[in-house]
Amino acid sequence: MLNKVKELREKTNAGMMDCKKALSEAGGDLDKAVDILRKKGASLASKKSSRATKEGSISSYIHMNQRIGVLVEVNCETDFVARNDAFKNFVKELGMQIAAANPTYVTKDEVKEEDIQKEKDIIKEQNKSKPESALTKIVEGKINSYYQDVCLLEQPYIKDPKTTIKELLTEVIAKTGENIVIKRFTRYQLGETA
Amino acid sequence: MLNKVKELREKTNAGMMDCKKALSEAGGDLDKAVDILRKKGASLASKKSSRATKEGSISSYIHMNQRIGVLVEVNCETDFVARNDAFKNFVKELGMQIAAANPTYVTKDEVKEEDIQKEKDIIKEQNKSKPESALTKIVEGKINSYYQDVCLLEQPYIKDPKTTIKELLTEVIAKTGENIVIKRFTRYQLGETA
Repeated sequence: MLNKVKELREKTNAGMMDCKKALSEAGGDLDKAVDILRKKGASLASKKSSRATKEGSISSYIHMNQRIGVLVEVNCETDFVARNDAFKNFVKELGMQIAAANPTYVTKDEVKEEDIQKEKDIIKEQNKSKPESALTKIVEGKINSYYQDVCLLEQPYIKDPKTTIKELLTEVIAKTGENIVIKRFTRYQLGETA
Repeated sequence: MLNKVKELREKTNAGMMDCKKALSEAGGDLDKAVDILRKKGASLASKKSSRATKEGSISSYIHMNQRIGVLVEVNCETDFVARNDAFKNFVKELGMQIAAANPTYVTKDEVKEEDIQKEKDIIKEQNKSKPESALTKIVEGKINSYYQDVCLLEQPYIKDPKTTIKELLTEVIAKTGENIVIKRFTRYQLGETA
């Protein structure tokens, strides 16, 4: 049991008591305990999401022989967390994610309504032979994958595609106990017309 | 004489024959010879300025405990020059310059006509007691220092304020023999409202 607590702490960075509780709730099943802590993390994250974030870190990632460059700003509440390894590592991973997966926005909210409308029109045009009842589901599915393409938070994490960047963010909020916000990013690719 | 040629080459990176010629033209005066080569570099640079630049480098500079970050793209003609030390060093210096001196634009051309007009109105208002004849000169001088504030190419180089970034660019064009263009930059400062 103690070994499992240790493993769970390493996996989730949660406190000793939280790990013990989650493990007993999960009947000793490590994966279930991770899930329990994740859900707790998610609820913790939503509680923290209204708190002011004035500190943080600006980080860069240069890829492929200087042909791709990324600048990203991530905010947190205190300078203390800005220097925390879990936070710094998250910021570093974001740089690589943005370089590789080339998102356009941070959140869904930033996507313009007219762009969504344009996507919907294209999808409907491409599927006009389908019955109306199926079309709604098709549009919904395709719009979701559109968001997964262009919004950083909706993207599957390149190193673990079962996890989204939003889930990664939730985890680091749980680990650090602070509200954390991906504020903005810029990505340059050599020779692209800006 | 040979020592001076060597020193001049190290200072300017110009060819052996060019250095000899410049030194004899300058009557052995090293500073004068540097000036002669600089002028030559400038005329060389203007000749090269129409050539296509598709290669280059994207570089970043992170300053002050991750509180300021800069991303900059500089283009040149060949991958060979992109890997040249003079080029790479120039790009690096630009990152530090942008972090420290916080320009808004690369060139004068990017400044909006209305912003210039606004500056002019402010200057005229501040100097309305001055005679009309003096006012023209005052406006001209202040607009020049406005450009030196906001345009990267017009800024005095932070490590050697007698030199402008434009002159530094001219030098690296002369050294590498290629057209080089500062394409764009982005500067983040922690917590600023973007």
